[in-house]
Amino acid sequence: MKILLSIAISVFATAHLFSQDQAILKIRADHEPRHFDLLKEYAAFLSLPNTMNDPSELVANAEFISGMMKKRGIRNIQLLHADAEGAIPAVYGEALTPGATRTVIFYAHYDGQPVNPDKWAEGLSPFTPQLASGPLDKGGQLLDFPAANADLNPDWRLYARSAADDKAGVFTILNAYDAIRRTGLAPHVNIKFFFEGEEERGSTNLGEILQKHRDLLRADAWIICDGPMHASGKKQITFGVRGDVNLHLTVYGAKRPLHSGNYGNWAPNPAMKLVRLLATMKDDEGHVLVDGFYDDVIPLSASERAALAAIPDPAPMMQQELAFAEPESPTRTFLESITTLPTLNINGIVSANVGRLASNIIPTTATATLDLRLVKGNDSRRQTGKVIDHIRNQGYLVLDREPTDEERLANANIATVRSGTGYNAQRTSMDLPVSQLVIEAVKSTTSQDVVLMPSAGGSLPLYLFEEILHTPPITVPVVNYDNNQHGENENVQIGFLWNGMETIAAIMLIDFK
Amino acid sequence: MKILLSIAISVFATAHLFSQDQAILKIRADHEPRHFDLLKEYAAFLSLPNTMNDPSELVANAEFISGMMKKRGIRNIQLLHADAEGAIPAVYGEALTPGATRTVIFYAHYDGQPVNPDKWAEGLSPFTPQLASGPLDKGGQLLDFPAANADLNPDWRLYARSAADDKAGVFTILNAYDAIRRTGLAPHVNIKFFFEGEEERGSTNLGEILQKHRDLLRADAWIICDGPMHASGKKQITFGVRGDVNLHLTVYGAKRPLHSGNYGNWAPNPAMKLVRLLATMKDDEGHVLVDGFYDDVIPLSASERAALAAIPDPAPMMQQELAFAEPESPTRTFLESITTLPTLNINGIVSANVGRLASNIIPTTATATLDLRLVKGNDSRRQTGKVIDHIRNQGYLVLDREPTDEERLANANIATVRSGTGYNAQRTSMDLPVSQLVIEAVKSTTSQDVVLMPSAGGSLPLYLFEEILHTPPITVPVVNYDNNQHGENENVQIGFLWNGMETIAAIMLIDFK
Repeated sequence: MKILLSIAISVFATAHLFSQDQAILKIRADHEPRHFDLLKEYAAFLSLPNTMNDPSELVANAEFISGMMKKRGIRNIQLLHADAEGAIPAVYGEALTPGATRTVIFYAHYDGQPVNPDKWAEGLSPFTPQLASGPLDKGGQLLDFPAANADLNPDWRLYARSAADDKAGVFTILNAYDAIRRTGLAPHVNIKFFFEGEEERGSTNLGEILQKHRDLLRADAWIICDGPMHASGKKQITFGVRGDVNLHLTVYGAKRPLHSGNYGNWAPNPAMKLVRLLATMKDDEGHVLVDGFYDDVIPLSASERAALAAIPDPAPMMQQELAFAEPESPTRTFLESITTLPTLNINGIVSANVGRLASNIIPTTATATLDLRLVKGNDSRRQTGKVIDHIRNQGYLVLDREPTDEERLANANIATVRSGTGYNAQRTSMDLPVSQLVIEAVKSTTSQDVVLMPSAGGSLPLYLFEEILHTPPITVPVVNYDNNQHGENENVQIGFLWNGMETIAAIMLIDFK
Repeated sequence: MKILLSIAISVFATAHLFSQDQAILKIRADHEPRHFDLLKEYAAFLSLPNTMNDPSELVANAEFISGMMKKRGIRNIQLLHADAEGAIPAVYGEALTPGATRTVIFYAHYDGQPVNPDKWAEGLSPFTPQLASGPLDKGGQLLDFPAANADLNPDWRLYARSAADDKAGVFTILNAYDAIRRTGLAPHVNIKFFFEGEEERGSTNLGEILQKHRDLLRADAWIICDGPMHASGKKQITFGVRGDVNLHLTVYGAKRPLHSGNYGNWAPNPAMKLVRLLATMKDDEGHVLVDGFYDDVIPLSASERAALAAIPDPAPMMQQELAFAEPESPTRTFLESITTLPTLNINGIVSANVGRLASNIIPTTATATLDLRLVKGNDSRRQTGKVIDHIRNQGYLVLDREPTDEERLANANIATVRSGTGYNAQRTSMDLPVSQLVIEAVKSTTSQDVVLMPSAGGSLPLYLFEEILHTPPITVPVVNYDNNQHGENENVQIGFLWNGMETIAAIMLIDFK
């Protein structure tokens, strides 16, 4: 596959290889002396809380981004709104190239996952960006913010919510463009910018925004700057994503909490009910036991399989670092697990309290949040339907609301199942000319191999770009893989910010004939 | 059994029946006009936070109790300390009767279960006592605290942590004695008072306190005023308790939270591990599948079985009120469930977050707190050992601390199991003379049957009184059964406080030859 790719690249792009290499050196010479200022601005950006679903927090972020764009000479800056109540606008801007017939839009998102500050390590706070000499769980030490003339070690980590996911995308896209502008390099394409504010809640209104502004947003490619790079630190291009949908599942016991001594053995225990129900969903090799769970999967093409086989397996190194003895399944490789198969995972379970907060009670309810990742062929509603059917087949009355007393008295097993907004997987063919040009551009910025992933494990609603705009999305992640995105102690390794600017700048400089 | 009991009573106590009835009428005439003052003092008592394990909170409660005792002319008031660091003292006092050769000690505890104020109903706060016209979950409305001359409806509820469990015990004991003193009634026995501060944490130091003060605390009977009365509202005497021990169980996944898309299907999920482990512990009829779990059980005696059979089954009424369709087991009655069998119950499970707080992650750990109730014959350490063996038999390395990285890398399944301080069950024979006298005294205060329970479902370390002091404990609960003890929205129905004073006063007036 590597040889085939080289041939493909030579056909489309050899002519530009040398000039882009020169361009990257210019970009580097421009950004290196400015790292302190870039970091300072980034810390200010990360100080703005950006909890998904919080309009006032998110609008403040959108305004900050608009300001960053204005400072960099980007034009036609505007908020693209959807009509829905509580919808969070996307931030749009453009830098048109006179005479250009091709357009590339760069995407990142500025909203973040919810935080539980209590779970963050001592000295960290989600919205008080904090530098450390390395990962805190591997001996990194907290650092004071450096002086203006200090040397910034590229191995340092910057801890904050969205430091990696995905304000890093906003940062690298805007600063890549700025570096091009500052160095006087001339793009061949129109460059547009699109920063979403609703990605973490499932991009509820992205479809409507794309639909309403389809002329403004029409392009030859969307470059999606999100997600982590390969664990080896090699640059990476990803041609698809898994889909995603959540299920929130609650089962019931007695209406009020009961003393476990005075009622134990008699009153039904919802925690035990939930445990028994969830245990029916997977076998001990991680195979999902829900009927038909794997039926709709469209397998990888031959070239996608070959690309996957060419990627060094990061599993042994990651497993060592993450300190576990066995992956969930003894028969699947890491890349197969996250690329070729749908998942059913427990994101969280809560029933009453544990440890020092525990009381000797029989809880009233037990709740789990499930995460279903989808691959090409899965439909989010069909997939959640299978899980709901499975719950029914275990003898449960399934409701989409709390049960009434009458329902409780008539049904021994009741589950309330609420489904989050889901979306399906998407895959762009690696063989498209634009795919080949992007591969070549990224290769021009690094002396190492570039990892080509047929699909990421993570999710973005990229199918929308195909369905609504008929434009292929290609994902170019820029952050370190060990960034704790979505969890506590999220961080970015700052060297990845500088490298990411070069990656994105190279794509902005593509000569797309 | 009822006929047998009547005969037994006539042998021991018929002579006192009339005089006690008169005494109870006197007691009632004394307390009825004072309900407002009693309630006001009780609200002040309940305003003192009394979280188990919090020495400063609990010492403030002990001081308040000492003050109540002093006001009531109780002598030799003192705090009985254990030597252990952080031990909470018991409050002792006495009212000796000149010439008396018999002594009865009255026990209650003043510490409370931990609270999670967020879970309490709107308008309630654990340590701001609040009156309501009835149970809030059955349409009761919050009430302003009444004026001094207001009529207090005995159906009203007073909401606060420990309103039922077990400051109600302290309240009724001290006010029962006070009413005796105020009315000039003359007890035949020495009356002693013992209020423990460590019951909710398993009475860690009670044994030491009894041992150190065994002369002061020697008696002919301990009357334990704790736990709820029969669901019918009938007065009740309980001759034993189940033992209790908790297990805190944590299983592990990767060392840091992982994005469920980028790692899902590959990284082991501790929530799913825990679910699968817990599901092995019980079948779908509530039978515990841990090897030998029921082996040590000493069955009830013939007379205990007969007493149990005479008790009206509260299950249908309770089930209706608690709104569930089927008890845990289709083959056990309520009374069998809580009296004759050890239990294994999940008190709580937590792994990451659910619902709006959930993130799309693979959690790092999953924790459950288990509650094991014990019956006569079970030993707490032997019983937890069986559960630990069961966990081992499921392929787990069991530790009593967090695993090291080396252990994580060498063992696919690791469980940290920490055992709380546990204690064994206890049963006093109903056929003892003192048991019969107490039965007769309680009967003198009510026109209804008195429910005689061979054992409660709940737990107190009553075996200590037998083992250390060789004194039979007998439990006389005074609070309504639907009091939410240990959970949120704990409450007492205030009429039970007034009736409880009469119950306890009648026992204080026993003529124990």
